Amino acid sequence: MIRFECDYLEGAHPLIFKRLGETNLLQTAGYGEDPFCAGAREKIRAACGGADVEVHFLVGGTQTNFTVISAMLRPHQGVLAASTGHINVHETGAVEAVGHKVLPLPSEDGKIRAGQVRMAYEAHWNDKDHEHMVQPGMVYISQPTENGTLYSKEELQALHDVCRELSLPLFLDGARMGYGLMSEANDLTLEDIAKLTDVFYIGGTKVGALFGEAVVIANPMFRKDFRYFIKQHGGMLAKGRLLGIQFDTLFTDGLYFEIAKRADGLAMRLKDAFTKKGYGLRFDSYTNQQFPILPNDHMERLKEKYTFAFWEAVDDSHSAVRFCTSWATQESAVEELIRDIEEL
Amino acid sequence: MIRFECDYLEGAHPLIFKRLGETNLLQTAGYGEDPFCAGAREKIRAACGGADVEVHFLVGGTQTNFTVISAMLRPHQGVLAASTGHINVHETGAVEAVGHKVLPLPSEDGKIRAGQVRMAYEAHWNDKDHEHMVQPGMVYISQPTENGTLYSKEELQALHDVCRELSLPLFLDGARMGYGLMSEANDLTLEDIAKLTDVFYIGGTKVGALFGEAVVIANPMFRKDFRYFIKQHGGMLAKGRLLGIQFDTLFTDGLYFEIAKRADGLAMRLKDAFTKKGYGLRFDSYTNQQFPILPNDHMERLKEKYTFAFWEAVDDSHSAVRFCTSWATQESAVEELIRDIEEL
Amino acid sequence: MIRFECDYLEGAHPLIFKRLGETNLLQTAGYGEDPFCAGAREKIRAACGGADVEVHFLVGGTQTNFTVISAMLRPHQGVLAASTGHINVHETGAVEAVGHKVLPLPSEDGKIRAGQVRMAYEAHWNDKDHEHMVQPGMVYISQPTENGTLYSKEELQALHDVCRELSLPLFLDGARMGYGLMSEANDLTLEDIAKLTDVFYIGGTKVGALFGEAVVIANPMFRKDFRYFIKQHGGMLAKGRLLGIQFDTLFTDGLYFEIAKRADGLAMRLKDAFTKKGYGLRFDSYTNQQFPILPNDHMERLKEKYTFAFWEAVDDSHSAVRFCTSWATQESAVEELIRDIEEL
Amino acid sequence: MIRFECDYLEGAHPLIFKRLGETNLLQTAGYGEDPFCAGAREKIRAACGGADVEVHFLVGGTQTNFTVISAMLRPHQGVLAASTGHINVHETGAVEAVGHKVLPLPSEDGKIRAGQVRMAYEAHWNDKDHEHMVQPGMVYISQPTENGTLYSKEELQALHDVCRELSLPLFLDGARMGYGLMSEANDLTLEDIAKLTDVFYIGGTKVGALFGEAVVIANPMFRKDFRYFIKQHGGMLAKGRLLGIQFDTLFTDGLYFEIAKRADGLAMRLKDAFTKKGYGLRFDSYTNQQFPILPNDHMERLKEKYTFAFWEAVDDSHSAVRFCTSWATQESAVEELIRDIEEL
Repeated sequence: MIRFECDYLEGAHPLIFKRLGETNLLQTAGYGEDPFCAGAREKIRAACGGADVEVHFLVGGTQTNFTVISAMLRPHQGVLAASTGHINVHETGAVEAVGHKVLPLPSEDGKIRAGQVRMAYEAHWNDKDHEHMVQPGMVYISQPTENGTLYSKEELQALHDVCRELSLPLFLDGARMGYGLMSEANDLTLEDIAKLTDVFYIGGTKVGALFGEAVVIANPMFRKDFRYFIKQHGGMLAKGRLLGIQFDTLFTDGLYFEIAKRADGLAMRLKDAFTKKGYGLRFDSYTNQQFPILPNDHMERLKEKYTFAFWEAVDDSHSAVRFCTSWATQESAVEELIRDIEEL
Repeated sequence: MIRFECDYLEGAHPLIFKRLGETNLLQTAGYGEDPFCAGAREKIRAACGGADVEVHFLVGGTQTNFTVISAMLRPHQGVLAASTGHINVHETGAVEAVGHKVLPLPSEDGKIRAGQVRMAYEAHWNDKDHEHMVQPGMVYISQPTENGTLYSKEELQALHDVCRELSLPLFLDGARMGYGLMSEANDLTLEDIAKLTDVFYIGGTKVGALFGEAVVIANPMFRKDFRYFIKQHGGMLAKGRLLGIQFDTLFTDGLYFEIAKRADGLAMRLKDAFTKKGYGLRFDSYTNQQFPILPNDHMERLKEKYTFAFWEAVDDSHSAVRFCTSWATQESAVEELIRDIEEL
Repeated sequence: MIRFECDYLEGAHPLIFKRLGETNLLQTAGYGEDPFCAGAREKIRAACGGADVEVHFLVGGTQTNFTVISAMLRPHQGVLAASTGHINVHETGAVEAVGHKVLPLPSEDGKIRAGQVRMAYEAHWNDKDHEHMVQPGMVYISQPTENGTLYSKEELQALHDVCRELSLPLFLDGARMGYGLMSEANDLTLEDIAKLTDVFYIGGTKVGALFGEAVVIANPMFRKDFRYFIKQHGGMLAKGRLLGIQFDTLFTDGLYFEIAKRADGLAMRLKDAFTKKGYGLRFDSYTNQQFPILPNDHMERLKEKYTFAFWEAVDDSHSAVRFCTSWATQESAVEELIRDIEEL
Repeated sequence: MIRFECDYLEGAHPLIFKRLGETNLLQTAGYGEDPFCAGAREKIRAACGGADVEVHFLVGGTQTNFTVISAMLRPHQGVLAASTGHINVHETGAVEAVGHKVLPLPSEDGKIRAGQVRMAYEAHWNDKDHEHMVQPGMVYISQPTENGTLYSKEELQALHDVCRELSLPLFLDGARMGYGLMSEANDLTLEDIAKLTDVFYIGGTKVGALFGEAVVIANPMFRKDFRYFIKQHGGMLAKGRLLGIQFDTLFTDGLYFEIAKRADGLAMRLKDAFTKKGYGLRFDSYTNQQFPILPNDHMERLKEKYTFAFWEAVDDSHSAVRFCTSWATQESAVEELIRDIEEL
């Protein structure tokens, strides 16, 4: 089987693996207080344009989401998010488990708009019984979204502006950040994102690392005592240097960006192949996730040789599915898949 | 001003007040372990057809909802409820604050159907990544609903059957239970409800008492240690006999039913007046809450003399509003309102 | 049986009951937004020396404790309290249920000292791994304590000073506040307490009311959105005026103080009787709770006619027990008990 | 500097590293559903004597503790543990953050005894107000303890028996399991532990792995839906095979046991050196943690060349400290330290 069902099918980029090997028997302090983490923090700050940001390393995405959200909200507040947002559907209620309601906003494409945020805010505060409802306390978005779509700079600026105006902090889940930044459709830089959000994270798990997410706290208000939150929620890796070494490698000589760009390119070749074949697209993605709508008999035949994710039934004879590329996808695998699609 | 905005505008039914006065200086044990509570429990059991049920008294509805739900679910489970359900919109995220997601099902009239429960259940278990989602762990309904509508015996039986089949316990919020039971459109008895649900409660706050909700646990599985839950969540009244005395009075000589019936009758007179005037109805309620759609200028003129709740804008010139009657509503007030409507 | 086992054996002071009756059929807005609550807030502010404080009414003590504490702490913080504190031993883990550790400080008499707070604070911050431990985030004390003892003005001032210095807010549980204020051994006024704490509450349940606790928020930092916390935790009584009417009555013409003083006086007569009889005292209380150490055979004989609480075994033949008086205790009952003690 | 302050100073055992390298570019399913995890589960089952147990892999110890505990308790229950237990002092209140009180039992050596468990249980249930207290719901122990001490088979059997009798499930934290099993003072096997506990875990982080803890659920009652708990609490590693590969390697050809034995041996050589030098021992440990009591001037001189953990001041001129060995400790480092001690 050739696997395309997600972007965490393999281990780590070989350069990361090499660095882990070279440093394996060195002794360092634990819990992220080692020189590798310090170095990685510096490189991430530099990649954010030298901004005054605080950087922390956690192990996985769900963990990062509920840890950050629990640090940003008071108990009576909830988090505004797209109804399709990862925190709303695919984290086993981790946000609720730390006490907060996800306040879903309808979304067709995975994105939410500034106007929706304002409406939700006003609906809350205009209700004379607002104390009987969960108070919107922050906004969660993902870039790219779970549907592979991207916020433009203009859209993110608009979200930033409305959030600033309404005192709602903005948190950006960048589990697939690299694939967004390097998309041909993208016009945002890490520096922009550091300016336009209060907290965001740069995903490692899906972009070259064994595991790891780098949380960037731009707003000083949310820095206080953040390490306590990491520890309390089980995200403080004893051998924290593993995270430092990985992110240091990813942010040396542009590795993070280079491998993401390659994966995006392979995904766009798949997209072309789907389109040429006449398949519709469930979402118009320019990132490493592609969502073609396949005739069910084609889907069944592809399943014999490839793995990919079922997304949803579109009608009686068609299904939307997801193919992912990643830093590790082999060009030959993509070419073989394209040939097989053409021959269907 | 004559008030109709809710059904908790006055104190307690005079008979309750009288009993509280007569017993005021008696000494009893605290925390619900007094003879009045014991008596009230017996009378409620009898009203449930002598069923083998356990009865507890709590202070208010929100408290009762999150206390019961936290006793019925394991941490990774959520509660299926109508999107309009009180726990989903008007309890400041109390269910999430105890760690559970409310899993909303779309509802136009405030009710959910057996088929919706089955679909949500199957959607969860058919997803191969179900462990990444909140597991449906129980079903919450309200009778009457927040929109004044009622489940028929057939509908409740269907919910019961699907819940039993899928091992999803069924919890019924009866904050306005009396007004439901005595509605001319109702075909359910307390005995039916005790048979068809796992846990339910009989609201006192809105039906004659100063405060108080009587939780009836039909399913023995949810009885164990329930008093710990009440205490932990702040619902164990030190002078618990106040709850016992009130429910004992309400369930003596049918008082609970009689006063609810009268309130329903007054509400139906209002409904007639709205209909005769040509107003539409936002929900077709046969209980103590009525939801006429008023031309905005009529609404403004009524506001000069009456209080009632704004529900939602229907179009640019019409608004849905809510008028409530209760055990305490005066016939003369209803008649005056009807006259004023006729003259608009 | 004549009951002395606690101070919530009867209903409400007759004057409260009278006011509840007179207002029973008046219509008012719900949830504490009625004129009675407004009036009671004003009177409590006046009793606090006209201080700029915010006043809220909740139903019971456990509820008040976890609601206030959850509003004062961030998730990684805990509350310093005497190991004997009510929140540490008698609230079914309600504070933990909202996510916070109670950090117990050893206490013989129910009080904690400023020096203990400083030591706990320093032990935390001097540990290089402090992020692995719960951060002390506030201090909880009760006045009078669960053992009937009292903080002197000097002691409370010292706690206030250390808390201020260390930025640890101070919360005072005054479930039995009246009995403390009117004790012959007390040198603190409500005005002092409003100055020396950040948040405190004035207990109604045990001092004349059917139920109810008046939370006084002196520090503006903890006022924001407090009503959301009350609602989320089930403390927002629908018929909130019941709390307003009760506290308004208690704070009219000094009723709260007068009835507490009488109860303290009766308790001191019991204390005299115990001492004269040669009994030791488990705690040296000058308030409404008295803790004599009885020979077990005397204890058994008193049990035939009186109820009182077993506290702990002192040795093989002696037990510490608790007798409480309250606003409702009858002088004749105390006199009868004293006679029976003398005759043992 | 030569480091001895903890047992997570280096990366992974070279054999683990080699296996990770060999498998790095293989494609596998995520979330622990890969063949490596399956293989590791089998080997762990075999190491437990072929017992019918369920095995799950999590990332770190704190995470494992609160995930398991939240799966084993109902909301009103707490966990009995030594006051020195890791969950009580060094996990930033993670257990409280999921809603449960740690019920501390006094302990001098880090162990608790069966008699203490019985006493705590009886104290709870004999109190007529037990519903006002946290109900003991399970027992947590660590083997070896945080003080390097060990439960004997007899002691564990006694704990098991009392837990079984009282229906209190027993959970054993084995973060340093290997060092316990291979201690010269140990008489317990993994098979014994699987028989005598309900749930336990085998630590990888401190015994050869980059990270990872293998949870062994012996009691079928706690297996249901456990993967939901892992996901909700952020412990479900996307590239789960990393855990499988590591544990598979550790449990191949006895690697786990061999490397732990070597570390214990080195620690015993340190212990000998301390004793010969005339130092007292804060705890009498036969495992990889050693706790000598040093004269402060010796401590200061050792600090110039070695890192080790300060434990506590013993008197004005002596301090207890901790030296750890691990699978990675170099013999030469131990020998150098011993020479330096001799020369102090």
